[in-house]
Amino acid sequence: MNEIKLIDIKEEILSENKGLADKMRELFKNRKVLFINIMGSPGAGKTSLILKTIESIGSKYKIAVIEADIDSLIDSESVSKLNVPTVQLHTGGFCHVDANMVEKAIESLPLDELDLIILENVGNLVCPAESDTGAFKNIAILSVPEGDDKPLKYPLMFSVSDVLVINKLDYLHLADFKADRVILNVMALNEKIQVFQLSCRTSDGLEAWISWLDKEISTGLGGPVS
Amino acid sequence: MNEIKLIDIKEEILSENKGLADKMRELFKNRKVLFINIMGSPGAGKTSLILKTIESIGSKYKIAVIEADIDSLIDSESVSKLNVPTVQLHTGGFCHVDANMVEKAIESLPLDELDLIILENVGNLVCPAESDTGAFKNIAILSVPEGDDKPLKYPLMFSVSDVLVINKLDYLHLADFKADRVILNVMALNEKIQVFQLSCRTSDGLEAWISWLDKEISTGLGGPVS
Repeated sequence: MNEIKLIDIKEEILSENKGLADKMRELFKNRKVLFINIMGSPGAGKTSLILKTIESIGSKYKIAVIEADIDSLIDSESVSKLNVPTVQLHTGGFCHVDANMVEKAIESLPLDELDLIILENVGNLVCPAESDTGAFKNIAILSVPEGDDKPLKYPLMFSVSDVLVINKLDYLHLADFKADRVILNVMALNEKIQVFQLSCRTSDGLEAWISWLDKEISTGLGGPVS
Repeated sequence: MNEIKLIDIKEEILSENKGLADKMRELFKNRKVLFINIMGSPGAGKTSLILKTIESIGSKYKIAVIEADIDSLIDSESVSKLNVPTVQLHTGGFCHVDANMVEKAIESLPLDELDLIILENVGNLVCPAESDTGAFKNIAILSVPEGDDKPLKYPLMFSVSDVLVINKLDYLHLADFKADRVILNVMALNEKIQVFQLSCRTSDGLEAWISWLDKEISTGLGGPVS
């Protein structure tokens, strides 16, 4: 009897993607560009964090942004007003960004001139966590109005992220949100995660995030290629 | 030369799912149960709307709830405290609910005794919009802190929904959110959509939603089987 070959399509796609993601990391490392991937629900504040980051360190470092959306140019229009090279990826209904899309997106970017590339992933707390984009650091944003139970309900996102940004602290008085509960549950999934609490609207708490990112850029791409 | 058979896996899955979804609608129609599917981002207020709905009409109608989550029992625990039959679906990483999962979920429900089944889909503004659950009515919730640009960025969700609930109106003073902008953009995608503006926290505006749902239950399952 012949051996039956089992093809697990999802496994094949994920494995192929991981290979390309590793290749992208190697490329970025050689060009001395830090590539970070920002993920979170729709409206968590991904674009706001990117805008605030560019305002803070855009004169010190050369930054480019990849904006991924199902549709629309809204975010890339906001970002490009700050005079940084911006690429709009339209995923055409696809719910997350993979390494292949990143490879296409960077074709038009001047890699040798850049210090930092920020990817804004599709607003989605589920699917982006499954796909390696080639980023050195994965950043999850959770905003206060979303509720403090999200790490229990969407554990993969918080497991694969290197950084958790808790945003919209200025909504705390309206929401039944306990940051301690979030941090406790996230640390149980991922004890190495770094947590920053801030408000992009008021800029409170933003310095710690900026200072972390500044250090990651200047001390060499956030660790070894994995 | 032999003809080449093209198998589009996504198309095949969607088409098979649509067939099962139609079968489920026929079943629910025969049993005189209205089945509705509530979708929205994580933290938009899906569970809160379900709790408020049960509090309002739970003594008039017999209601059951299907809670879909990647993981955790948090929402089903909240709902079952209100003494309604509750099924927890764990999707095991899957980003949305399909008709096959609904078929499994209703096995333990007393269909002949029920007037209304509410499905809380996985918190996700992208993937649930692609999959027919067998519901008669699709309800999208968008909360004020998510921002008024979401219909432009996630158009499919607002195209496939029969109802849009704009929730967390009590956050309006903090957010740069224009309900008129949302409604204008949603109507451009889907001119038949019904819009309700409310706050589950303060109960403001809830009557119009309840009154619509009451009418749907009592006047026969929200229209013909499609």
